[in-house]
Amino acid sequence: MPVRSASAVWEGDLKSGKGSMRFGSGAFEGQFSFASRFEEGTGTNPEELAGAAHAGCFSMAFSNELSKAGFVPTRVATNARVHLENGAISRIDLACEAQVPRIDNAKFQEIAAGAKTGCPISKLFTGAQINLEAKLV
Amino acid sequence: MPVRSASAVWEGDLKSGKGSMRFGSGAFEGQFSFASRFEEGTGTNPEELAGAAHAGCFSMAFSNELSKAGFVPTRVATNARVHLENGAISRIDLACEAQVPRIDNAKFQEIAAGAKTGCPISKLFTGAQINLEAKLV
Repeated sequence: MPVRSASAVWEGDLKSGKGSMRFGSGAFEGQFSFASRFEEGTGTNPEELAGAAHAGCFSMAFSNELSKAGFVPTRVATNARVHLENGAISRIDLACEAQVPRIDNAKFQEIAAGAKTGCPISKLFTGAQINLEAKLV
Repeated sequence: MPVRSASAVWEGDLKSGKGSMRFGSGAFEGQFSFASRFEEGTGTNPEELAGAAHAGCFSMAFSNELSKAGFVPTRVATNARVHLENGAISRIDLACEAQVPRIDNAKFQEIAAGAKTGCPISKLFTGAQINLEAKLV
Protein backbone atom coordinates (compact mmCIF):
# COMPACT_ATOMS: atom_id res chain seq x y z
CA MET A 1 0.00 0.00 0.00
CA PRO A 2 1.20 3.52 -0.69
CA VAL A 3 3.12 5.90 1.54
CA ARG A 4 2.14 9.53 0.88
CA SER A 5 4.13 12.57 1.86
CA ALA A 6 3.72 16.28 2.39
CA SER A 7 5.85 19.01 3.89
CA ALA A 8 5.59 22.33 5.65
CA VAL A 9 7.85 25.19 6.68
CA TRP A 10 7.37 27.77 9.41
CA GLU A 11 9.66 30.78 9.81
CA GLY A 12 9.65 32.90 12.96
CA ASP A 13 7.39 33.06 15.97
CA LEU A 14 3.67 32.34 16.15
CA LYS A 15 2.14 35.74 15.54
CA SER A 16 4.55 37.40 13.12
CA GLY A 17 5.88 34.22 11.48
CA LYS A 18 4.79 32.72 8.18
CA GLY A 19 4.26 29.23 6.87
CA SER A 20 3.73 27.16 3.76
CA MET A 21 2.43 23.65 3.14
CA ARG A 22 3.03 21.45 0.12
CA PHE A 23 1.59 18.11 -1.06
CA GLY A 24 4.04 15.39 -2.11
CA SER A 25 2.19 15.02 -5.43
CA GLY A 26 2.75 18.69 -6.18
CA ALA A 27 -1.01 19.28 -6.53
CA PHE A 28 -0.91 22.10 -3.98
CA GLU A 29 1.47 24.52 -2.36
CA GLY A 30 0.13 27.42 -0.31
CA GLN A 31 0.72 29.87 2.48
CA PHE A 32 -0.64 29.92 6.01
CA SER A 33 -0.23 32.31 8.92
CA PHE A 34 -1.54 33.08 12.39
CA ALA A 35 -4.24 35.17 10.71
CA SER A 36 -5.31 32.46 8.22
CA ARG A 37 -5.50 29.90 11.02
CA PHE A 38 -6.98 31.79 13.96
CA GLU A 39 -8.48 34.92 12.39
CA GLU A 40 -9.79 35.71 8.93
CA GLY A 41 -6.53 36.26 7.02
CA THR A 42 -5.86 35.12 3.47
CA GLY A 43 -4.44 31.61 3.10
CA THR A 44 -5.13 28.12 4.31
CA ASN A 45 -4.81 26.32 7.67
CA PRO A 46 -4.30 22.73 8.86
CA GLU A 47 -7.93 22.39 9.92
CA GLU A 48 -9.38 22.86 6.42
CA LEU A 49 -6.83 20.38 5.05
CA ALA A 50 -7.97 17.84 7.64
CA GLY A 51 -11.58 18.61 6.67
CA ALA A 52 -10.89 18.09 2.97
CA ALA A 53 -9.10 14.80 3.71
CA HIS A 54 -12.09 13.63 5.74
CA ALA A 55 -14.73 14.78 3.23
CA GLY A 56 -12.78 13.14 0.41
CA CYS A 57 -12.14 9.87 2.19
CA PHE A 58 -15.71 9.54 3.44
CA SER A 59 -17.21 10.32 0.01
CA MET A 60 -14.99 7.71 -1.67
CA ALA A 61 -15.64 5.07 1.02
CA PHE A 62 -19.40 5.68 1.03
CA SER A 63 -19.51 5.42 -2.79
CA ASN A 64 -17.55 2.17 -2.60
CA GLU A 65 -19.84 0.64 0.02
CA LEU A 66 -22.96 1.73 -1.88
CA SER A 67 -21.56 0.20 -5.08
CA LYS A 68 -20.68 -3.07 -3.35
CA ALA A 69 -24.30 -3.28 -2.13
CA GLY A 70 -25.53 -2.85 -5.72
CA PHE A 71 -26.28 0.88 -5.63
CA VAL A 72 -23.66 2.74 -7.68
CA PRO A 73 -24.09 6.41 -6.71
CA THR A 74 -24.50 9.17 -9.27
CA ARG A 75 -22.94 11.68 -6.88
CA VAL A 76 -21.88 11.80 -3.23
CA ALA A 77 -21.12 15.34 -1.96
CA THR A 78 -19.80 15.89 1.56
CA ASN A 79 -19.01 19.02 3.54
CA ALA A 80 -16.80 18.83 6.64
CA ARG A 81 -16.84 21.45 9.38
CA VAL A 82 -13.82 21.26 11.70
CA HIS A 83 -14.19 22.81 15.16
CA LEU A 84 -10.96 24.05 16.80
CA GLU A 85 -11.47 24.89 20.47
CA ASN A 86 -8.82 25.58 23.13
CA GLY A 87 -5.97 24.07 21.14
CA ALA A 88 -7.79 20.90 20.11
CA ILE A 89 -10.16 19.80 17.38
CA SER A 90 -13.19 18.87 19.41
CA ARG A 91 -15.53 17.80 16.65
CA ILE A 92 -15.97 17.32 12.91
CA ASP A 93 -19.44 17.57 11.40
CA LEU A 94 -19.90 15.78 8.08
CA ALA A 95 -22.94 16.75 6.02
CA CYS A 96 -23.47 14.50 3.01
CA GLU A 97 -25.96 14.74 0.16
CA ALA A 98 -26.06 11.81 -2.24
CA GLN A 99 -27.86 10.86 -5.42
CA VAL A 100 -28.26 7.08 -5.41
CA PRO A 101 -30.67 5.40 -7.82
CA ARG A 102 -33.21 2.88 -6.41
CA ILE A 103 -32.00 2.75 -2.80
CA ASP A 104 -34.39 3.22 0.14
CA ASN A 105 -33.51 5.56 2.99
CA ALA A 106 -33.02 2.87 5.65
CA LYS A 107 -30.41 1.03 3.58
CA PHE A 108 -28.82 4.36 2.63
CA GLN A 109 -28.45 5.40 6.28
CA GLU A 110 -27.08 1.99 7.26
CA ILE A 111 -24.36 2.14 4.60
CA ALA A 112 -23.57 5.79 5.45
CA ALA A 113 -23.04 4.91 9.12
CA GLY A 114 -20.70 2.08 8.15
CA ALA A 115 -18.62 4.35 5.90
CA LYS A 116 -18.39 6.97 8.65
CA THR A 117 -16.93 4.41 11.05
CA GLY A 118 -14.82 2.50 8.58
CA CYS A 119 -13.15 5.03 6.30
CA PRO A 120 -9.38 5.34 6.87
CA ILE A 121 -9.52 9.03 7.79
CA SER A 122 -12.27 8.45 10.38
CA LYS A 123 -10.09 5.72 11.88
CA LEU A 124 -7.19 8.20 12.04
CA PHE A 125 -9.28 11.04 13.54
CA THR A 126 -10.17 9.27 16.76
CA GLY A 127 -9.24 12.30 18.85
CA ALA A 128 -12.45 14.14 17.90
CA GLN A 129 -16.16 13.46 17.92
CA ILE A 130 -17.38 12.77 14.37
CA ASN A 131 -20.99 13.54 13.48
CA LEU A 132 -22.66 12.58 10.21
CA GLU A 133 -25.85 13.87 8.65
CA ALA A 134 -26.54 11.94 5.44
CA LYS A 135 -29.33 12.94 3.08
CA LEU A 136 -30.62 11.03 0.08
CA VAL A 137 -31.49 13.63 -2.55
CA MET B 1 -12.25 29.82 17.98
CA PRO B 2 -12.71 29.24 14.26
CA VAL B 3 -14.72 26.59 12.47
CA ARG B 4 -13.07 25.63 9.16
CA SER B 5 -14.76 23.84 6.29
CA ALA B 6 -13.92 21.85 3.21
CA SER B 7 -15.89 19.73 0.77
CA ALA B 8 -15.55 16.79 -1.57
CA VAL B 9 -17.53 15.09 -4.30
CA TRP B 10 -17.30 11.51 -5.58
CA GLU B 11 -19.13 10.32 -8.69
CA GLY B 12 -19.52 6.63 -9.49
CA ASP B 13 -17.98 3.51 -8.04
CA LEU B 14 -14.54 3.08 -6.49
CA LYS B 15 -12.44 2.06 -9.46
CA SER B 16 -13.95 3.98 -12.36
CA GLY B 17 -15.36 6.90 -10.36
CA LYS B 18 -13.78 10.31 -9.92
CA GLY B 19 -13.52 12.79 -7.09
CA SER B 20 -12.62 16.34 -6.20
CA MET B 21 -11.76 18.08 -2.94
CA ARG B 22 -11.97 21.77 -2.13
CA PHE B 23 -10.82 23.93 0.81
CA GLY B 24 -13.34 26.32 2.34
CA SER B 25 -10.87 29.22 1.94
CA GLY B 26 -10.72 28.56 -1.79
CA ALA B 27 -6.92 28.07 -1.60
CA PHE B 28 -7.16 24.67 -3.30
CA GLU B 29 -9.46 22.59 -5.46
CA GLY B 30 -8.19 19.40 -7.07
CA GLN B 31 -9.02 15.99 -8.45
CA PHE B 32 -8.49 12.57 -6.92
CA SER B 33 -9.17 9.05 -8.15
CA PHE B 34 -8.57 5.39 -7.33
CA ALA B 35 -5.29 5.71 -9.23
CA SER B 36 -4.11 8.86 -7.41
CA ARG B 37 -4.93 7.29 -4.06
CA PHE B 38 -3.87 3.66 -4.40
CA GLU B 39 -1.63 3.65 -7.46
CA GLU B 40 0.55 6.28 -9.09
CA GLY B 41 -2.09 8.28 -10.99
CA THR B 42 -2.11 12.05 -11.36
CA GLY B 43 -3.93 13.97 -8.65
CA THR B 44 -4.06 14.14 -4.90
CA ASN B 45 -5.38 11.85 -2.14
CA PRO B 46 -6.67 12.23 1.43
CA GLU B 47 -3.45 10.87 2.93
CA GLU B 48 -1.21 13.63 1.58
CA LEU B 49 -3.74 16.24 2.78
CA ALA B 50 -3.60 14.71 6.25
CA GLY B 51 0.20 14.73 6.02
CA ALA B 52 0.28 18.41 5.02
CA ALA B 53 -2.10 19.29 7.87
CA HIS B 54 0.16 17.47 10.32
CA ALA B 55 3.44 18.90 8.97
CA GLY B 56 1.93 22.40 9.03
CA CYS B 57 0.45 22.16 12.49
CA PHE B 58 3.54 20.60 14.04
CA SER B 59 5.87 23.19 12.43
CA MET B 60 3.72 26.06 13.72
CA ALA B 61 3.34 24.56 17.21
CA PHE B 62 7.04 23.75 17.51
CA SER B 63 7.96 27.29 16.42
CA ASN B 64 5.57 28.69 19.00
CA GLU B 65 6.95 26.56 21.84
CA LEU B 66 10.54 27.41 20.87
CA SER B 67 9.68 31.12 20.81
CA LYS B 68 7.96 30.95 24.19
CA ALA B 69 11.13 29.39 25.62
CA GLY B 70 13.19 32.29 24.26
CA PHE B 71 14.43 30.64 21.06
CA VAL B 72 12.66 32.17 18.06
CA PRO B 73 13.42 29.79 15.17
CA THR B 74 14.78 30.97 11.86
CA ARG B 75 13.13 28.05 10.06
CA VAL B 76 11.30 24.85 11.00
CA ALA B 77 10.82 22.43 8.07
CA THR B 78 8.83 19.21 8.53
CA ASN B 79 8.12 16.31 6.21
CA ALA B 80 5.26 13.90 6.98
CA ARG B 81 5.08 10.36 5.59
CA VAL B 82 1.62 8.81 5.90
CA HIS B 83 1.44 5.01 5.80
CA LEU B 84 -1.85 3.52 4.53
CA GLU B 85 -2.05 -0.23 5.18
CA ASN B 86 -5.08 -2.50 4.90
CA GLY B 87 -7.63 0.31 4.93
CA ALA B 88 -6.12 2.22 7.85
CA ILE B 89 -3.39 4.77 8.42
CA SER B 90 -1.06 2.83 10.68
CA ARG B 91 1.63 5.42 11.19
CA ILE B 92 2.83 8.92 10.41
CA ASP B 93 6.56 9.68 10.42
CA LEU B 94 7.46 13.33 10.96
CA ALA B 95 11.00 14.36 10.03
CA CYS B 96 11.85 17.88 11.12
CA GLU B 97 14.92 20.01 10.45
CA ALA B 98 15.11 23.31 12.29
CA GLN B 99 17.41 26.30 12.43
CA VAL B 100 17.23 27.70 15.95
CA PRO B 101 19.84 30.19 17.17
CA ARG B 102 21.56 29.55 20.52
CA ILE B 103 19.58 26.48 21.65
CA ASP B 104 21.31 23.27 22.78
CA ASN B 105 20.18 19.89 21.48
CA ALA B 106 18.71 18.61 24.76
CA LYS B 107 16.38 21.60 25.10
CA PHE B 108 15.55 21.41 21.39
CA GLN B 109 14.54 17.74 21.66
CA GLU B 110 12.48 18.38 24.79
CA ILE B 111 10.49 21.14 23.10
CA ALA B 112 10.08 19.07 19.92
CA ALA B 113 8.62 16.17 21.90
CA GLY B 114 6.15 18.49 23.59
CA ALA B 115 5.01 19.96 20.27
CA LYS B 116 4.57 16.47 18.82
CA THR B 117 2.24 15.52 21.67
CA GLY B 118 0.47 18.83 22.05
CA CYS B 119 -0.24 20.15 18.57
CA PRO B 120 -3.95 20.09 17.65
CA ILE B 121 -3.48 17.78 14.65
CA SER B 122 -1.48 15.24 16.71
CA LYS B 123 -4.33 15.28 19.24
CA LEU B 124 -6.80 14.60 16.39
CA PHE B 125 -4.69 11.82 14.83
CA THR B 126 -4.82 9.45 17.78
CA GLY B 127 -5.73 6.50 15.54
CA ALA B 128 -2.15 6.17 14.26
CA GLN B 129 1.30 5.86 15.72
CA ILE B 130 3.18 9.16 15.36
CA ASN B 131 6.97 9.14 15.17
CA LEU B 132 9.16 12.23 15.24
CA GLU B 133 12.77 12.68 14.23
CA ALA B 134 13.86 16.23 15.00
CA LYS B 135 17.22 17.56 13.89
CA LEU B 136 18.87 20.84 14.84
CA VAL B 137 20.70 22.09 11.74
